[in-house]
Amino acid sequence: MVGISQRKHRCCGSRIIMESPNLQAYLEKMLTAERKEKFREILAYRTKHFTVALEDVYQMHNASAVIRSCDVFGIQEAHLIETKYAKRIDKNIAMGAQKWVDVQSYDSIQNCIDRLKSEGYRIAATTPHGNSMLLDDLDINPKTAFFFGTEKNGLSSQIMAQSDLRVKIPMFGFTESLNVSVSVAIVLNQLRKRLNESDIRWQLTEAEKAEKQLDWTKKSIKNVDAIIARFLSEHSTS
Amino acid sequence: MVGISQRKHRCCGSRIIMESPNLQAYLEKMLTAERKEKFREILAYRTKHFTVALEDVYQMHNASAVIRSCDVFGIQEAHLIETKYAKRIDKNIAMGAQKWVDVQSYDSIQNCIDRLKSEGYRIAATTPHGNSMLLDDLDINPKTAFFFGTEKNGLSSQIMAQSDLRVKIPMFGFTESLNVSVSVAIVLNQLRKRLNESDIRWQLTEAEKAEKQLDWTKKSIKNVDAIIARFLSEHSTS
Repeated sequence: MVGISQRKHRCCGSRIIMESPNLQAYLEKMLTAERKEKFREILAYRTKHFTVALEDVYQMHNASAVIRSCDVFGIQEAHLIETKYAKRIDKNIAMGAQKWVDVQSYDSIQNCIDRLKSEGYRIAATTPHGNSMLLDDLDINPKTAFFFGTEKNGLSSQIMAQSDLRVKIPMFGFTESLNVSVSVAIVLNQLRKRLNESDIRWQLTEAEKAEKQLDWTKKSIKNVDAIIARFLSEHSTS
Repeated sequence: MVGISQRKHRCCGSRIIMESPNLQAYLEKMLTAERKEKFREILAYRTKHFTVALEDVYQMHNASAVIRSCDVFGIQEAHLIETKYAKRIDKNIAMGAQKWVDVQSYDSIQNCIDRLKSEGYRIAATTPHGNSMLLDDLDINPKTAFFFGTEKNGLSSQIMAQSDLRVKIPMFGFTESLNVSVSVAIVLNQLRKRLNESDIRWQLTEAEKAEKQLDWTKKSIKNVDAIIARFLSEHSTS
C-alpha cells in the first residue's frame, strides 16, 4: 500500500489519482535540478488572489495570448465562458501556456459567476465605458475576478448586472477600446507589480504549491502515465 | 494672397500645402464644438518624448494593435521597418488608428536608427533575454525610442549592436516572451503613467499641436480636398 486514493477533481469532475509523497519523489528524480528550481521560483509568484474570466472571446490568438499573460504574471487560474464557440476554443488553445495555468471552461455565464462568488471573489467588469473606476484607483486587498468581454460587444448585461465594480484602463487617444489580449496584459502587469509591493497574503498555500509541483512535474515527463503505472504496480502491496 | 506656400514634407517627401490660419478657421467651422474639444483634450496628452519602432512585424493584427496602443497612450509617432514585408503592411494597416498617429515606414534598419538618433532619441532595445534593465528601473528623462522585434526572432543584431540600452518587462512564469502587441501595450501604459506623474516637458510644442490640429481637422471632413480647392480659388488674389 503506497497511500493511493482516488477522488473527483473539484474543477472538472474527472477522476484523479492522489499520489503519495513517494511517487512525487520518484517522478522528481527524472527532472534536472534546474527544472525543479524553476518550478519553485515560479510557484513563489503564483496567486489565486486575482483571476481572469473571458466571455466568449472567439478569436483564438486572443484567448491564447490571455492564457499566456496569466502565466507570465503569475495568475494560476483562468476561466473561459464559451456559450457560443466552445469547440473552437478547446481545440485551439490545447497547445498553449494553459499547461501551466489552470483553465476552467463554462457553457453558462451563471455557473462561472456563481463559482467565483462562492470562492470569495469580487466580480470586476472591465469596460472602457461609463463611470468605471480607474485601474490605478482599485483597492487590491479583496480577492477579485476580472471579467473581459469581446472588444466589439463588451461584456453581456448578465455579467454587468452582477458585477461588484467596474474598472477601466486610462486611455488618452481616439481609440475607445483595446484588444482584449492587450487589456488583460495591461491589467495583469499592473496588478502583479502592486501585489509584489503589497503586504497582502496573495501566495498559494503550501498544499496548493505541492499540488502544482506534482502536476507540473508530470507534465514535464514523457510517457508519464506508463511510468506511474509501472511505479504503482511495483509498489502496490495488494 | 492668403499666405499659402508649398514645401516638401520632411517625413515622406510628398508636397504639402501650408495653409494660412484663415483656411484652418474655415475648416474648423465644419467640426462640432465637441469634436474640436476632443482634439484639444487628446493633443494635451500627445508626446514625442517616447516613440516606438517595430522591426519587420509581419502579422498585421500585431502592427495594427501597436499603432492603436500608440494612439491610446498618446505616442504621436511610430516607425515601421519593413525590409521584408513592406507591401503587406502598407495595405493592411491603411484603415487603422494611424489616421491619428504619424507612422513612418523604412526599408532600411539603418535609416530608421539614423533618423531617430539625429532627433535625439536613445535607442532602447526591448528584449526578454540577457542582462536587460527592468522597465520599472528605466530613467524616463531622456527621449527614448523603444525598438520591438518579432516574438520569434527578437531584434536583429544590427539594432542590438547600436542600442544604447536594453529593457525588459518583468516576467514571472514559464513563458519567455510576450506577443509584440502585448509588449508594446505594457511598455506604453507604464511610460504614460510615469510621464503623467513627472515634471518632464514631454508635451508637443504649440506649433506641433497646431499642425496636428489642422491635420486631424482635415481628416475629419469628407471631400476635404475639394473644399480646400474651392477655398483657395475663392481667396486667391493671383
